[in-house]
Amino acid sequence: MPKLDLSDAPVRTSCVYPGKLADHCKGRSKIALGDLGGLDQFGVNLTRLAPSAASAHQHWHLKEDELIYMLEGEAVLVEDDGETVLRAGDVATFKAGAPNGHMVVNRSDAYAVLLEVGTRAQDEVASYTDPAGDMKVVKENGAWKFFRKNGEAY
Amino acid sequence: MPKLDLSDAPVRTSCVYPGKLADHCKGRSKIALGDLGGLDQFGVNLTRLAPSAASAHQHWHLKEDELIYMLEGEAVLVEDDGETVLRAGDVATFKAGAPNGHMVVNRSDAYAVLLEVGTRAQDEVASYTDPAGDMKVVKENGAWKFFRKNGEAY
Repeated sequence: MPKLDLSDAPVRTSCVYPGKLADHCKGRSKIALGDLGGLDQFGVNLTRLAPSAASAHQHWHLKEDELIYMLEGEAVLVEDDGETVLRAGDVATFKAGAPNGHMVVNRSDAYAVLLEVGTRAQDEVASYTDPAGDMKVVKENGAWKFFRKNGEAY
Repeated sequence: MPKLDLSDAPVRTSCVYPGKLADHCKGRSKIALGDLGGLDQFGVNLTRLAPSAASAHQHWHLKEDELIYMLEGEAVLVEDDGETVLRAGDVATFKAGAPNGHMVVNRSDAYAVLLEVGTRAQDEVASYTDPAGDMKVVKENGAWKFFRKNGEAY
């Protein structure tokens, strides 16, 4: 039956970033809805941000399109060229290859909830543009590898 | 700026089905959020169903994964092997190639609103399983062609 049972769905609170870089996403949780339903062409995450949590470090994808849809609360979309408040019903898209680093940060005092949709490419590069995000992340055959901006592996 | 301006977004109320088959979707409207944001790897439709409207004839996709997320109201997910009520926050997934015809029908007396996410394959086959949906739909290089189940072109 294609309707998902979310009552005991795995909720991921960890972050794949190496070391201290993962602190940026403290208070973030995700349910991977697409994975849970057996999909592999795109991912759809139900992402919940506690006050002060961020969705990610500011990044852009070389090959994977992205879309976010705000479900509840208020958060700030931080991009290389400015900030935009997002509220329930707001939508933002990020075309693959457009070098505009972006992340969503919850600066409110309530939870913010959003859907994140992204293509699943087998090979990918994510470039991080915020000064705190000293990373370049490369996916090869579905496995992520983390590098500093100077090319050194984490 | 990646946040979409939905205030004057194109709202599609027409249906691509040929002739009378399009009546099934009367009262359905869609905003193609992904297209509006310039994405082409997957589509995300914000779909609004008036009472008695259906999302589609009952169908399954050969190559394209699909996911629906209910935003508002109540609707019925009709599949080949049964029916399931969907309410806000409910999610259903349809893996490409799984021959389980599905559609969403609004049998309530209020609007039902959902997000539909689907991969954009260049070539695709959609097979229709409800007796009223006398179609087999083939996409070649992005263009849809409509056939009766007996193979005759519409």
